[in-house]
Amino acid sequence: MPVETIAWKDGCIRIIDQTRLPQNLVHLDIREIPALADAVRELKIRGAPAIGIAAAMGMALAAWNFSGKDAEKMARAVREAGSILASTRPTAVNLFWAVGRMEKRLARDLHGGVDKIRSGLVEEALLILEEDRSTCRQMGRNGAALLPDPAAVVTLCNAGALATSDFGTALGVVYAAAESGKRVQVFACETRPLLQGARLTSWELRQSGIDVTVICDSAAAHVMKTQKVDCILVGADRIAANGDAANKIGTYGLAIAARAHRIPFYVAAPVSTIDPATPTGAEIPIEHRPAREISESFGVRTVPENASVLNPAFDVTPHEFITGIITEKGVLYPPFDEAIAGKIISD
Amino acid sequence: MPVETIAWKDGCIRIIDQTRLPQNLVHLDIREIPALADAVRELKIRGAPAIGIAAAMGMALAAWNFSGKDAEKMARAVREAGSILASTRPTAVNLFWAVGRMEKRLARDLHGGVDKIRSGLVEEALLILEEDRSTCRQMGRNGAALLPDPAAVVTLCNAGALATSDFGTALGVVYAAAESGKRVQVFACETRPLLQGARLTSWELRQSGIDVTVICDSAAAHVMKTQKVDCILVGADRIAANGDAANKIGTYGLAIAARAHRIPFYVAAPVSTIDPATPTGAEIPIEHRPAREISESFGVRTVPENASVLNPAFDVTPHEFITGIITEKGVLYPPFDEAIAGKIISD
Repeated sequence: MPVETIAWKDGCIRIIDQTRLPQNLVHLDIREIPALADAVRELKIRGAPAIGIAAAMGMALAAWNFSGKDAEKMARAVREAGSILASTRPTAVNLFWAVGRMEKRLARDLHGGVDKIRSGLVEEALLILEEDRSTCRQMGRNGAALLPDPAAVVTLCNAGALATSDFGTALGVVYAAAESGKRVQVFACETRPLLQGARLTSWELRQSGIDVTVICDSAAAHVMKTQKVDCILVGADRIAANGDAANKIGTYGLAIAARAHRIPFYVAAPVSTIDPATPTGAEIPIEHRPAREISESFGVRTVPENASVLNPAFDVTPHEFITGIITEKGVLYPPFDEAIAGKIISD
Repeated sequence: MPVETIAWKDGCIRIIDQTRLPQNLVHLDIREIPALADAVRELKIRGAPAIGIAAAMGMALAAWNFSGKDAEKMARAVREAGSILASTRPTAVNLFWAVGRMEKRLARDLHGGVDKIRSGLVEEALLILEEDRSTCRQMGRNGAALLPDPAAVVTLCNAGALATSDFGTALGVVYAAAESGKRVQVFACETRPLLQGARLTSWELRQSGIDVTVICDSAAAHVMKTQKVDCILVGADRIAANGDAANKIGTYGLAIAARAHRIPFYVAAPVSTIDPATPTGAEIPIEHRPAREISESFGVRTVPENASVLNPAFDVTPHEFITGIITEKGVLYPPFDEAIAGKIISD
């Protein structure tokens, strides 16, 4: 992949500032927790797997920046960083999953002293990064087999290289299919209000030479009716134990339209996105973001000041709308509760 | 209503420049056909009924501006204006309906000389304007009876005062319900790419003190699932003889989502929007508008230059998704082909 969404080098987290794309490819070097928390909150880095990695690196950063020899104090600083980062965004479970995993590593190394804690946390964060890479590749292979040749795919938001450490979840399936020689055409929903589809998905697909057509989110049903569309491919921010999937606002509408057109609807996500502790979609907290993302788009006021705005960042697609969940451990099919209990939780 | 979308005064067509709302309420005085055609093409005036009125006034304007005593030459100038205006936008049938009606009036007055033609065409245009007013009021009354109290309604684009000469089609139903004392809350889909919902619908509803919440188009399905929504109310640009309805892109997706949630889906449109000459939605020409409406929103480039863009301005909602069509002659129910043939064409 041509982009390195997030990287660690000696106490510095280097990310691409995704709010500047597609016009400018700008990197940010982050060395402090508040700056990292702001970057996550402001979507300079986004995508469930990527913000999990960012949180892990953030906890490593807290250890890196700690001076002194008191392991307990260092542990407190690391946990505090984890808690700050976990509070940035509520929906993507990968964030909490990564923080939990880093806390476990911290507990394991706690009695080895500050150097051991520091090197352990850096190692664990890089391990999460590396695992995400191989997870993306395996997910891509598992999903690519589902696409015909040629294939036309509709996607929403950005579940690609910019959302992960490698080539993505939903877009990973596209990249893997293209690498295997299939001709893939992608309809990218622009994804209001922040236009991750228009700005990020189309940008990274074009970087890889893949045919992409940007459409308004509201045009997806019309495209399903009037063009040949083989499947819908989206990522997820959290998948409940019954298979209900939270993802970028608009996903649920896509799923309803896909069912009306008998088009398969696939969710691609690493196992770390599945949260067995969340029984159904009803228990997934939905982030509501500032009204100004909608009312002051593009620096221009587009909604009168005396009108209300509702800006949910995610919606939940009930499991009955989902054809399959593409994971690194294989493609799960309904009944998802059994597939998840059997294949995921039991491992 | 607080807004006068279009008016005629002595050879001048005064419109509100809708591209400047909600930030600026600017009127344009149009005295030439090319300027009027540009205004329609650039959506300075839009909405199926309103552009029908604009075309009628345009033909009156052509007669007004004609100097000389040759009635045949004046008739040619009027027909040429009609033809120019008819070529501005392909989907809304009201445009062609209005041009056709003005041509009939022209034929009637042709042998009376230039003064008779001129006064006849002005009279006919003002008659179309007046009829639209009473049509809006009657449609509003017919539709208002369908709303409970309190009522929550989802709408798309702008089918309100700014789309007609009075208080609108779909929003006319809202205004009439509010006037009758019902409490009505409107969820206005922002309506990408040109944000007629965010800019125009919310503006005019707030001018009338009606509760309005702007949402992203992609959030409509989530709102239907998580909020109490009593019905969907939209306008139409053309309704085929079988009841299939073309309207702003996104309407079809709303209709699919409404059916999935068992929410009634109503189309409000004057009889002049029903085109018996178009058998089904498949025969309705869909306008594709410039890519830059999506890729260069509000002066900011949001799609990389090497990505494609598809920008259909309308979609077609098949009649089986429509609960009822609210017209000035009453509410039509399925089977729509029979209702249209019996109630509309036979009149």
